[in-house]
Amino acid sequence: MKKAVIVLSGWLDSTVLLYKLIDEWYDVCAINFFYGQKHSKELKCAEHICKKMGVEYTLVDISFLKKLLNSALTKDDIDIPEWHYQADTMKMTVVPNRNMIFASIAVGYAQSIWATIVALGVHGGDHEIYPDCREDFMQKLNKAVEISDRHKVSLYYPLIHMDKSTIVNVWLHLWVDFAKTWTCYKWGEIPCGKCWSCMEREEAFKKNWMKDPLLASL
Amino acid sequence: MKKAVIVLSGWLDSTVLLYKLIDEWYDVCAINFFYGQKHSKELKCAEHICKKMGVEYTLVDISFLKKLLNSALTKDDIDIPEWHYQADTMKMTVVPNRNMIFASIAVGYAQSIWATIVALGVHGGDHEIYPDCREDFMQKLNKAVEISDRHKVSLYYPLIHMDKSTIVNVWLHLWVDFAKTWTCYKWGEIPCGKCWSCMEREEAFKKNWMKDPLLASL
Repeated sequence: MKKAVIVLSGWLDSTVLLYKLIDEWYDVCAINFFYGQKHSKELKCAEHICKKMGVEYTLVDISFLKKLLNSALTKDDIDIPEWHYQADTMKMTVVPNRNMIFASIAVGYAQSIWATIVALGVHGGDHEIYPDCREDFMQKLNKAVEISDRHKVSLYYPLIHMDKSTIVNVWLHLWVDFAKTWTCYKWGEIPCGKCWSCMEREEAFKKNWMKDPLLASL
Repeated sequence: MKKAVIVLSGWLDSTVLLYKLIDEWYDVCAINFFYGQKHSKELKCAEHICKKMGVEYTLVDISFLKKLLNSALTKDDIDIPEWHYQADTMKMTVVPNRNMIFASIAVGYAQSIWATIVALGVHGGDHEIYPDCREDFMQKLNKAVEISDRHKVSLYYPLIHMDKSTIVNVWLHLWVDFAKTWTCYKWGEIPCGKCWSCMEREEAFKKNWMKDPLLASL
């Protein structure tokens, strides 16, 4: 059976991607990263989904990045900006080189277990401000990944041209349990509804004439 | 002043590279990784050299890789092969995707402190068996690195075509303190003289008609 590693954050995008891989008959192993992010509730969602789907789940603690790298997502003394992002506040939520760090560790894991692809949930909704979420970057990184070992591993990022509402639409065919996906940037028991991620998610469901199953289940 | 991040293992190659960067008037910050390797004596050498040269030194613990990835260098239950490597025993000392993992974290660090280059000690002596030490791999990875953020960082690997004896020869011009560089794959108080790395080092000094200053200082 063909084998895949997925970087599964527990957010909407990577969760849809996990269901897509299972739908494509991959034997999937999930890897997730705790890097000191405040929105760590997503970690529990990722674990829950894997348990439900019988997928092996590995959480890797790379919270040393908190000390090493600068970002509002990881530093305790900086507040997450509310409402829609402006370029300057949005830049604060960038963890420098995060996608390359995640991908490189996931590729090492894939090489260890003889998987042939590493799936990443990068998508068109990832804004202009994140250069490491763009197709050009993923293509170039993939060229390095494919020759980094004798056992060939490739990056797989099929959501790259989809916005959030298109990804939600994919759900209709794959039966993703969105009531268990977490995308709020804050800590609370329920999503704050105010941060950029909450607003984007709300818009995505609205565009599909749906109510968010997570909010409906509260 | 132009700023550089160096991945400094404390081994011969990266130590020479550090001296080279200082010689080129870079303000250098060093980053090193503990990934569960048995030859952790090199870590002390790296710290010592940085203290001596007034270079900021950061040690990052990524020993979760020990659990995640397979290699004789990190697994307690596998012995390091002695004498010159054969292809199959040498393959055992590969930590999957190690160079990409190190580079990606170092690049994130460089982006945080506005450095413009990440220097890596990969060299021509790194054998055929390590695909992620080859120039083709470094070039492709660099293309991804350079577009991963708005602040451009490039990889710098000037030793890529040099063998160990050429690198030792560079020392003659840069006054590297080789008595403080550690390259043995084993734990002992003194280098074992039997592992592949010890033998390669011995040969490099011999080719330069020199005695290894580390052995001379014992």
